Amino acid sequence: MSSLMECILKRRSIRAYKPDMVPQEALETILKAGTYAPTANDRQTPIILAITNKEMRDKLSAMNAKIMGKEGDDPFYGAPVVLVVLADKTKSTYLYDGTLVMGNLMLAAYDQGLGSCWVHRAKEEFESEEGKAILRELGIEGDYEGIGHCVLGYPAQDLPEAGPRKDNYVYYIK
Amino acid sequence: MSSLMECILKRRSIRAYKPDMVPQEALETILKAGTYAPTANDRQTPIILAITNKEMRDKLSAMNAKIMGKEGDDPFYGAPVVLVVLADKTKSTYLYDGTLVMGNLMLAAYDQGLGSCWVHRAKEEFESEEGKAILRELGIEGDYEGIGHCVLGYPAQDLPEAGPRKDNYVYYIK
Repeated sequence: MSSLMECILKRRSIRAYKPDMVPQEALETILKAGTYAPTANDRQTPIILAITNKEMRDKLSAMNAKIMGKEGDDPFYGAPVVLVVLADKTKSTYLYDGTLVMGNLMLAAYDQGLGSCWVHRAKEEFESEEGKAILRELGIEGDYEGIGHCVLGYPAQDLPEAGPRKDNYVYYIK
Repeated sequence: MSSLMECILKRRSIRAYKPDMVPQEALETILKAGTYAPTANDRQTPIILAITNKEMRDKLSAMNAKIMGKEGDDPFYGAPVVLVVLADKTKSTYLYDGTLVMGNLMLAAYDQGLGSCWVHRAKEEFESEEGKAILRELGIEGDYEGIGHCVLGYPAQDLPEAGPRKDNYVYYIK
């Protein structure tokens, strides 16, 4: 277990993964962290798809690559686990709510000794007929928008150093 | 210093504050946590206004109350410090980027023994002529959208318990 500040300062986006599966206990802790993200008025508008099934993981990867115009690539960098956060877009704060879930997932992944990376284009994926069919098969009804993929696994690269923060990130009004 | 999971599970939105000022060191640690949030391609599209000046804090509170249609109220719950996150809306990921900054600020506030709460309507505030003038006076150029206010201070209430998480927050695809 790491301190909050260590997780915040040391977490980096990992873009190369070993194929080894993530232990179930680590996965459940990470998912719990996601569900405890604050949401406006505690409405809990997001949901999380926790994908460890290789067939589904590869299917989403192919859909994502196609949206990017790079068919044949793996936008999930070989990660064996993909967590997809979606949120109920009929609620005005859905995008903020879903993003806070993503933030907790990435921090908890670092805390569990795993790498993670936010991969975009979940919006386009679940706007497609193929994406909508996946939700239907899971019994998910309603108007959900894809917020992001948090891919998870053991890093197959060294942890990169954080780049410098920009000048003028913070303006003090004292 | 608390563990990541303690911060995630115990942090709550605080809606009543003592007037006591936040120590400078705690404020700087919280701001540092914000600036280390991940942003797409490390573009660091957000900025943070760190407001400890009472006049400016009260001015924003009044603007916020007016937008809410509740003039005379203090939507900042008496908190002495207001951190406003804005992000460069010419970049497609600005809203996700800015929200991840907000998430780190709220977690770090808990870690520093402080209460925090996300207060909305920053978007409308900084779309107004009055809001734009505040940015101009700070020398901030460009097209920034208000993402949220993270109000900070010592809680004047007990820490509420977390409500139950909803059923079907997580869907496993094994």
